[in-house]
Amino acid sequence: MTKPHILPIRVYYEDTDAAGIVYHANYLRFAERGRTEMLRDAGFEHAQILHETGVAFTVRSMNINFKIPAKLDELLSVQTRMVSVGGASMEMAQAICRGDDVLADMTVKIACIDKRGKAARLPEAVRGLFRHKT
Amino acid sequence: MTKPHILPIRVYYEDTDAAGIVYHANYLRFAERGRTEMLRDAGFEHAQILHETGVAFTVRSMNINFKIPAKLDELLSVQTRMVSVGGASMEMAQAICRGDDVLADMTVKIACIDKRGKAARLPEAVRGLFRHKT
Amino acid sequence: MTKPHILPIRVYYEDTDAAGIVYHANYLRFAERGRTEMLRDAGFEHAQILHETGVAFTVRSMNINFKIPAKLDELLSVQTRMVSVGGASMEMAQAICRGDDVLADMTVKIACIDKRGKAARLPEAVRGLFRHKT
Amino acid sequence: MTKPHILPIRVYYEDTDAAGIVYHANYLRFAERGRTEMLRDAGFEHAQILHETGVAFTVRSMNINFKIPAKLDELLSVQTRMVSVGGASMEMAQAICRGDDVLADMTVKIACIDKRGKAARLPEAVRGLFRHKT
Repeated sequence: MTKPHILPIRVYYEDTDAAGIVYHANYLRFAERGRTEMLRDAGFEHAQILHETGVAFTVRSMNINFKIPAKLDELLSVQTRMVSVGGASMEMAQAICRGDDVLADMTVKIACIDKRGKAARLPEAVRGLFRHKT
Repeated sequence: MTKPHILPIRVYYEDTDAAGIVYHANYLRFAERGRTEMLRDAGFEHAQILHETGVAFTVRSMNINFKIPAKLDELLSVQTRMVSVGGASMEMAQAICRGDDVLADMTVKIACIDKRGKAARLPEAVRGLFRHKT
Repeated sequence: MTKPHILPIRVYYEDTDAAGIVYHANYLRFAERGRTEMLRDAGFEHAQILHETGVAFTVRSMNINFKIPAKLDELLSVQTRMVSVGGASMEMAQAICRGDDVLADMTVKIACIDKRGKAARLPEAVRGLFRHKT
Repeated sequence: MTKPHILPIRVYYEDTDAAGIVYHANYLRFAERGRTEMLRDAGFEHAQILHETGVAFTVRSMNINFKIPAKLDELLSVQTRMVSVGGASMEMAQAICRGDDVLADMTVKIACIDKRGKAARLPEAVRGLFRHKT
């Protein structure tokens, strides 16, 4: 299996809540940044993919486990791995880590859609790129 | 089975993203408001529970399906149902709806923890209240 | 002078930060909901205005004072008053209150723009409606 | 005058709204990251300052101009400069830029408070550090 994509993330006040920890929904924002940066490192950006191929990615479902809370000022890393690639979808496994600790992990099903919101074929360039990574 | 708790939610600019729809992580914020209001209607508030019993609720895991996108200005409803109640945890089923359409649905496992973050017994008053609702 | 538009707002975990209070930028989200609801009560919605007249509103500048912090579970109110209406802009005064206390206040300059982002004339229906309110 | 502190910021879907641009309140989140990183580069972190000196920083007021909208995938920079330092407060000037363009600029008054929320003296170490920067 290949190495995961890694994106460092600093926890700011905006990410925390009155319980003194990162608000649970914000782990999904961190994860989305990880997926976006994995694409960008592969040479693709959301607006550019939409412009060139008319398709966009949308999250269809997620299973998330929140294990250990993150706190203000901590430096985390979002680890992203492609699990499988289909004709019009992808599945990724992600973890938000602090050093060796897994704070939260999730599996994410992503669908490729066109401008009308209908299922569309994953662009070959993106598909071919990730085929080698599984 | 009992009727679900219902909370109306208006979609504002803050909830949307450049794809013209509600950003996926924001459904979790809507769902948390639904769970909080279900508690409040039952006579309990987070800060009060913490003050009186020393415990708080934390999300342990979630399975979410994003089915139909919500848009700016729409009026949605968060429907919340208790599925099961344990000694130190609860499971809820929630849906974000627009009229008869289910836009997103999720199951949420909630743990009861003390101020050190360790598992704590669900306060009897909260527990007894919800026992009748399953 | 007329009475301000009033919108009740409940503080949820999503609005707070690790300092135990509402994160400062979130008062701007509350204020935007107040402006949107003032428009909606007058019969107008953002998407509808854009569709019918091709114009949208954008915030040009704000002066904000943060006076007293709001906390989890509190019930606040956003009070919104139109101060002046021009050909292509409006100025509003808003306050986020808790009972009689003013927690934050602000003046907001709003510009009316077309789909290219250029200055556009405030739709007459909206303009006429607010003329009477100053 | 000294050079400003510079923090690069990438625009993600989470930062945008249905108008296709960065939602106005999010510029305040970017600015807060800039102030926090300026402090961190000077050797101080929020949680550490609170622990060692019992004080925290809170935003008292802001004047903001929104000039040019930022879009998805853009790389921005937050530029932060200390304008003046008092016994219990600081004033900063910040700008969110894209290349040579100033997208938004603001002046921010920050107060130093103790755990009860009362005015407290700016810690000498922080104060002395910034005195040289004005």
